[in-house]
Amino acid sequence: MADYDPDNIFAKILRGDLPSHKVYEDDDTLVIMDAMPQAPGHALVLPKAPARNLLDAEPMTVGALIAVVQRIARASKTAFAADGITVMQFNEAAGGQSVFHLHFHVIPRHDGQALRPHSGQMEDNDVLAANARKLKQALADL
Amino acid sequence: MADYDPDNIFAKILRGDLPSHKVYEDDDTLVIMDAMPQAPGHALVLPKAPARNLLDAEPMTVGALIAVVQRIARASKTAFAADGITVMQFNEAAGGQSVFHLHFHVIPRHDGQALRPHSGQMEDNDVLAANARKLKQALADL
Repeated sequence: MADYDPDNIFAKILRGDLPSHKVYEDDDTLVIMDAMPQAPGHALVLPKAPARNLLDAEPMTVGALIAVVQRIARASKTAFAADGITVMQFNEAAGGQSVFHLHFHVIPRHDGQALRPHSGQMEDNDVLAANARKLKQALADL
Repeated sequence: MADYDPDNIFAKILRGDLPSHKVYEDDDTLVIMDAMPQAPGHALVLPKAPARNLLDAEPMTVGALIAVVQRIARASKTAFAADGITVMQFNEAAGGQSVFHLHFHVIPRHDGQALRPHSGQMEDNDVLAANARKLKQALADL
Protein backbone atom coordinates (compact mmCIF):
# COMPACT_ATOMS: atom_id res chain seq x y z
CA MET A 1 0.00 0.00 0.00
CA ALA A 2 1.23 3.51 -0.82
CA ASP A 3 2.37 5.83 1.96
CA TYR A 4 0.20 8.66 3.26
CA ASP A 5 0.28 11.63 0.88
CA PRO A 6 0.22 14.87 2.91
CA ASP A 7 -1.04 16.76 -0.14
CA ASN A 8 -4.39 14.96 -0.45
CA ILE A 9 -7.49 17.18 -0.48
CA PHE A 10 -8.55 16.38 3.08
CA ALA A 11 -5.06 17.09 4.45
CA LYS A 12 -5.29 20.49 2.74
CA ILE A 13 -8.73 21.09 4.28
CA LEU A 14 -7.39 20.07 7.72
CA ARG A 15 -4.51 22.56 7.30
CA GLY A 16 -6.94 25.27 6.23
CA ASP A 17 -5.41 25.46 2.75
CA LEU A 18 -8.74 24.56 1.14
CA PRO A 19 -12.23 25.65 2.22
CA SER A 20 -14.93 23.27 3.46
CA HIS A 21 -18.38 23.36 5.03
CA LYS A 22 -17.60 22.40 8.64
CA VAL A 23 -20.18 20.69 10.82
CA TYR A 24 -18.13 19.65 13.85
CA GLU A 25 -14.55 19.74 15.09
CA ASP A 26 -12.72 18.46 18.16
CA ASP A 27 -9.09 17.67 18.95
CA ASP A 28 -9.17 14.44 16.95
CA THR A 29 -11.94 14.76 14.39
CA LEU A 30 -13.37 17.02 11.68
CA VAL A 31 -16.81 16.64 10.11
CA ILE A 32 -17.52 18.38 6.81
CA MET A 33 -20.15 18.21 4.09
CA ASP A 34 -19.21 16.14 1.03
CA ALA A 35 -18.90 18.67 -1.83
CA MET A 36 -20.17 16.01 -4.29
CA PRO A 37 -22.96 14.49 -2.20
CA GLN A 38 -24.50 11.15 -3.09
CA ALA A 39 -27.66 12.44 -1.38
CA PRO A 40 -28.50 15.82 0.22
CA GLY A 41 -26.86 16.02 3.66
CA HIS A 42 -23.98 13.62 2.84
CA ALA A 43 -21.29 14.24 5.49
CA LEU A 44 -17.70 13.06 5.91
CA VAL A 45 -16.07 12.22 9.23
CA LEU A 46 -12.26 12.39 9.19
CA PRO A 47 -9.50 12.10 11.76
CA LYS A 48 -6.98 14.89 12.15
CA ALA A 49 -4.20 12.33 12.49
CA PRO A 50 -2.72 11.31 9.15
CA ALA A 51 -3.92 7.89 8.00
CA ARG A 52 -4.42 6.67 4.45
CA ASN A 53 -7.39 4.49 5.38
CA LEU A 54 -8.52 1.79 7.83
CA LEU A 55 -5.65 -0.48 6.79
CA ASP A 56 -2.90 1.75 8.21
CA ALA A 57 -4.78 3.81 10.84
CA GLU A 58 -4.00 3.58 14.56
CA PRO A 59 -6.80 1.73 16.39
CA MET A 60 -7.17 4.70 18.77
CA THR A 61 -7.74 6.99 15.78
CA VAL A 62 -10.46 4.69 14.50
CA GLY A 63 -12.08 4.41 17.93
CA ALA A 64 -12.36 8.17 18.33
CA LEU A 65 -13.66 8.47 14.77
CA ILE A 66 -16.49 5.93 15.05
CA ALA A 67 -17.89 7.64 18.15
CA VAL A 68 -18.35 10.78 16.05
CA VAL A 69 -19.70 8.77 13.10
CA GLN A 70 -22.41 7.40 15.38
CA ARG A 71 -23.37 10.86 16.65
CA ILE A 72 -23.43 12.27 13.12
CA ALA A 73 -25.62 9.37 11.97
CA ARG A 74 -28.13 10.15 14.71
CA ALA A 75 -28.02 13.89 14.02
CA SER A 76 -28.34 13.29 10.27
CA LYS A 77 -31.51 11.24 10.73
CA THR A 78 -33.13 14.17 12.52
CA ALA A 79 -31.61 17.01 10.49
CA PHE A 80 -32.74 15.62 7.15
CA ALA A 81 -35.85 13.70 8.35
CA ALA A 82 -34.15 10.61 6.95
CA ASP A 83 -35.75 7.16 6.78
CA GLY A 84 -32.34 5.56 7.12
CA ILE A 85 -28.60 6.21 7.15
CA THR A 86 -25.94 4.60 4.99
CA VAL A 87 -22.40 4.52 6.38
CA MET A 88 -19.57 3.66 4.00
CA GLN A 89 -15.79 3.59 4.36
CA PHE A 90 -13.59 2.85 1.37
CA ASN A 91 -10.04 1.51 1.38
CA GLU A 92 -7.85 1.88 -1.72
CA ALA A 93 -9.17 2.65 -5.21
CA ALA A 94 -10.52 -0.89 -5.70
CA GLY A 95 -12.48 -0.45 -2.47
CA GLY A 96 -14.01 2.80 -3.75
CA GLN A 97 -11.61 5.30 -2.15
CA SER A 98 -10.94 8.51 -4.08
CA VAL A 99 -9.29 10.72 -1.42
CA PHE A 100 -6.50 8.97 0.43
CA HIS A 101 -7.10 10.27 3.94
CA LEU A 102 -9.23 7.99 6.14
CA HIS A 103 -12.90 9.01 6.19
CA PHE A 104 -16.38 7.66 6.84
CA HIS A 105 -19.34 8.67 4.67
CA VAL A 106 -22.59 9.30 6.58
CA ILE A 107 -25.46 9.59 4.11
CA PRO A 108 -29.10 10.31 4.99
CA ARG A 109 -31.46 8.17 2.93
CA HIS A 110 -35.11 8.38 1.99
CA ASP A 111 -37.36 5.52 0.95
CA GLY A 112 -37.18 4.87 -2.79
CA GLN A 113 -34.33 7.30 -3.45
CA ALA A 114 -31.19 5.70 -4.89
CA LEU A 115 -27.74 7.09 -4.15
CA ARG A 116 -26.12 9.28 -6.76
CA PRO A 117 -22.67 8.13 -8.04
CA HIS A 118 -19.74 8.50 -5.62
CA SER A 119 -17.88 11.22 -7.49
CA GLY A 120 -20.61 13.09 -9.22
CA GLN A 121 -21.47 16.75 -9.57
CA MET A 122 -20.29 19.55 -7.25
CA GLU A 123 -23.14 20.78 -5.05
CA ASP A 124 -24.00 24.48 -4.84
CA ASN A 125 -22.17 26.21 -1.96
CA ASP A 126 -25.37 27.68 -0.52
CA VAL A 127 -26.97 24.24 -0.35
CA LEU A 128 -23.90 22.78 1.37
CA ALA A 129 -23.83 25.66 3.87
CA ALA A 130 -27.53 25.22 4.66
CA ASN A 131 -27.12 21.46 5.15
CA ALA A 132 -24.06 22.02 7.38
CA ARG A 133 -26.17 24.35 9.55
CA LYS A 134 -29.01 21.81 9.81
CA LEU A 135 -26.63 19.02 10.79
CA LYS A 136 -24.77 21.22 13.29
CA GLN A 137 -28.07 22.19 14.93
CA ALA A 138 -29.29 18.58 15.14
CA LEU A 139 -25.94 17.57 16.65
CA ALA A 140 -26.27 20.28 19.30
CA ASP A 141 -29.81 19.04 20.08
CA LEU A 142 -28.85 15.33 20.45
CA MET B 1 -37.53 3.56 14.91
CA ALA B 2 -38.78 0.04 15.67
CA ASP B 3 -37.53 -1.82 18.75
CA TYR B 4 -34.92 -4.57 18.56
CA ASP B 5 -36.48 -7.82 17.33
CA PRO B 6 -34.83 -10.76 19.20
CA ASP B 7 -35.94 -13.12 16.41
CA ASN B 8 -33.85 -11.56 13.64
CA ILE B 9 -31.52 -13.94 11.77
CA PHE B 10 -28.32 -12.71 13.45
CA ALA B 11 -29.86 -13.03 16.93
CA LYS B 12 -30.67 -16.64 16.04
CA ILE B 13 -27.11 -17.20 14.84
CA LEU B 14 -25.76 -15.65 18.06
CA ARG B 15 -27.98 -18.00 20.10
CA GLY B 16 -26.81 -20.98 18.04
CA ASP B 17 -30.31 -21.56 16.66
CA LEU B 18 -29.08 -21.08 13.10
CA PRO B 19 -25.76 -22.22 11.59
CA SER B 20 -23.09 -19.84 10.27
CA HIS B 21 -19.53 -19.90 9.01
CA LYS B 22 -17.64 -18.40 11.95
CA VAL B 23 -14.37 -16.54 11.49
CA TYR B 24 -13.80 -14.98 14.90
CA GLU B 25 -15.51 -14.70 18.26
CA ASP B 26 -14.78 -12.91 21.53
CA ASP B 27 -16.88 -11.81 24.50
CA ASP B 28 -18.39 -8.89 22.58
CA THR B 29 -18.16 -9.75 18.90
CA LEU B 30 -18.88 -12.41 16.30
CA VAL B 31 -17.50 -12.46 12.75
CA ILE B 32 -19.19 -14.68 10.15
CA MET B 33 -19.19 -15.03 6.39
CA ASP B 34 -22.10 -13.36 4.58
CA ALA B 35 -24.15 -16.24 3.13
CA MET B 36 -25.09 -14.03 0.15
CA PRO B 37 -21.73 -12.40 -0.50
CA GLN B 38 -21.41 -9.31 -2.68
CA ALA B 39 -17.88 -10.53 -3.46
CA PRO B 40 -15.99 -13.68 -2.45
CA GLY B 41 -14.78 -13.32 1.14
CA HIS B 42 -17.55 -10.89 2.21
CA ALA B 43 -17.61 -10.99 6.04
CA LEU B 44 -19.98 -9.55 8.66
CA VAL B 45 -18.90 -8.16 12.03
CA LEU B 46 -21.66 -8.12 14.65
CA PRO B 47 -21.87 -7.32 18.36
CA LYS B 48 -23.27 -9.90 20.75
CA ALA B 49 -25.17 -7.15 22.56
CA PRO B 50 -28.61 -6.52 21.08
CA ALA B 51 -28.72 -3.37 18.96
CA ARG B 52 -30.90 -2.70 15.94
CA ASN B 53 -28.23 -0.57 14.24
CA LEU B 54 -25.88 2.38 14.81
CA LEU B 55 -28.80 4.63 15.75
CA ASP B 56 -29.66 2.78 18.97
CA ALA B 57 -26.36 1.01 19.81
CA GLU B 58 -24.38 1.79 22.97
CA PRO B 59 -21.20 3.72 22.07
CA MET B 60 -19.11 1.08 23.90
CA THR B 61 -20.64 -1.62 21.72
CA VAL B 62 -19.71 0.32 18.60
CA GLY B 63 -16.19 0.99 19.88
CA ALA B 64 -15.49 -2.70 20.48
CA LEU B 65 -17.00 -3.55 17.10
CA ILE B 66 -14.93 -1.17 14.99
CA ALA B 67 -11.67 -2.51 16.45
CA VAL B 68 -12.61 -5.93 15.08
CA VAL B 69 -13.80 -4.41 11.78
CA GLN B 70 -10.34 -2.92 11.32
CA ARG B 71 -8.58 -6.22 12.04
CA ILE B 72 -10.92 -8.09 9.70
CA ALA B 73 -10.29 -5.51 6.96
CA ARG B 74 -6.55 -6.06 7.27
CA ALA B 75 -6.90 -9.83 7.38
CA SER B 76 -9.29 -9.79 4.42
CA LYS B 77 -6.80 -7.87 2.27
CA THR B 78 -4.23 -10.62 2.83
CA ALA B 79 -6.58 -13.63 2.83
CA PHE B 80 -8.15 -12.77 -0.51
CA ALA B 81 -5.20 -10.89 -2.07
CA ALA B 82 -7.56 -7.94 -2.33
CA ASP B 83 -6.71 -4.64 -4.03
CA GLY B 84 -9.03 -2.80 -1.64
CA ILE B 85 -11.66 -3.23 1.06
CA THR B 86 -15.16 -1.78 1.13
CA VAL B 87 -16.74 -1.31 4.56
CA MET B 88 -20.48 -0.63 4.71
CA GLN B 89 -22.93 -0.30 7.57
CA PHE B 90 -26.65 0.14 6.87
CA ASN B 91 -29.27 1.66 9.15
CA GLU B 92 -32.95 0.98 8.52
CA ALA B 93 -34.38 -0.33 5.24
CA ALA B 94 -33.96 3.02 3.48
CA GLY B 95 -30.28 2.92 4.48
CA GLY B 96 -29.86 -0.54 2.95
CA GLN B 97 -30.37 -2.67 6.08
CA SER B 98 -32.01 -6.08 5.62
CA VAL B 99 -31.22 -7.80 8.96
CA PHE B 100 -32.05 -5.65 11.96
CA HIS B 101 -29.12 -6.48 14.22
CA LEU B 102 -26.20 -4.03 13.98
CA HIS B 103 -23.46 -5.24 11.61
CA PHE B 104 -20.59 -4.02 9.48
CA HIS B 105 -19.90 -5.47 6.05
CA VAL B 106 -16.21 -6.02 5.23
CA ILE B 107 -15.84 -6.82 1.54
CA PRO B 108 -12.57 -7.61 -0.25
CA ARG B 109 -12.41 -5.90 -3.65
CA HIS B 110 -10.43 -6.46 -6.80
CA ASP B 111 -9.67 -3.91 -9.52
CA GLY B 112 -12.42 -3.77 -12.13
CA GLN B 113 -14.81 -6.13 -10.30
CA ALA B 114 -18.14 -4.54 -9.35
CA LEU B 115 -20.03 -5.64 -6.25
CA ARG B 116 -22.90 -8.08 -6.67
CA PRO B 117 -26.32 -6.92 -5.35
CA HIS B 118 -26.72 -6.79 -1.54
CA SER B 119 -29.23 -9.62 -1.21
CA GLY B 120 -28.35 -11.88 -4.07
CA GLN B 121 -27.76 -15.58 -4.41
CA MET B 122 -26.85 -17.94 -1.54
CA GLU B 123 -23.21 -19.04 -1.78
CA ASP B 124 -22.22 -22.71 -1.71
CA ASN B 125 -21.45 -23.91 1.84
CA ASP B 126 -18.06 -25.34 0.85
CA VAL B 127 -17.00 -22.00 -0.62
CA LEU B 128 -18.09 -20.15 2.52
CA ALA B 129 -16.27 -22.64 4.73
CA ALA B 130 -13.06 -22.31 2.68
CA ASN B 131 -13.24 -18.50 2.79
CA ALA B 132 -13.87 -18.56 6.56
CA ARG B 133 -10.72 -20.70 6.96
CA LYS B 134 -8.65 -18.30 4.81
CA LEU B 135 -9.84 -15.27 6.78
CA LYS B 136 -9.32 -16.98 10.15
CA GLN B 137 -5.76 -17.91 9.15
CA ALA B 138 -4.93 -14.38 7.95
CA LEU B 139 -6.36 -12.98 11.20
CA ALA B 140 -4.13 -15.32 13.23
CA ASP B 141 -1.12 -14.18 11.17
CA LEU B 142 -1.76 -10.42 11.58
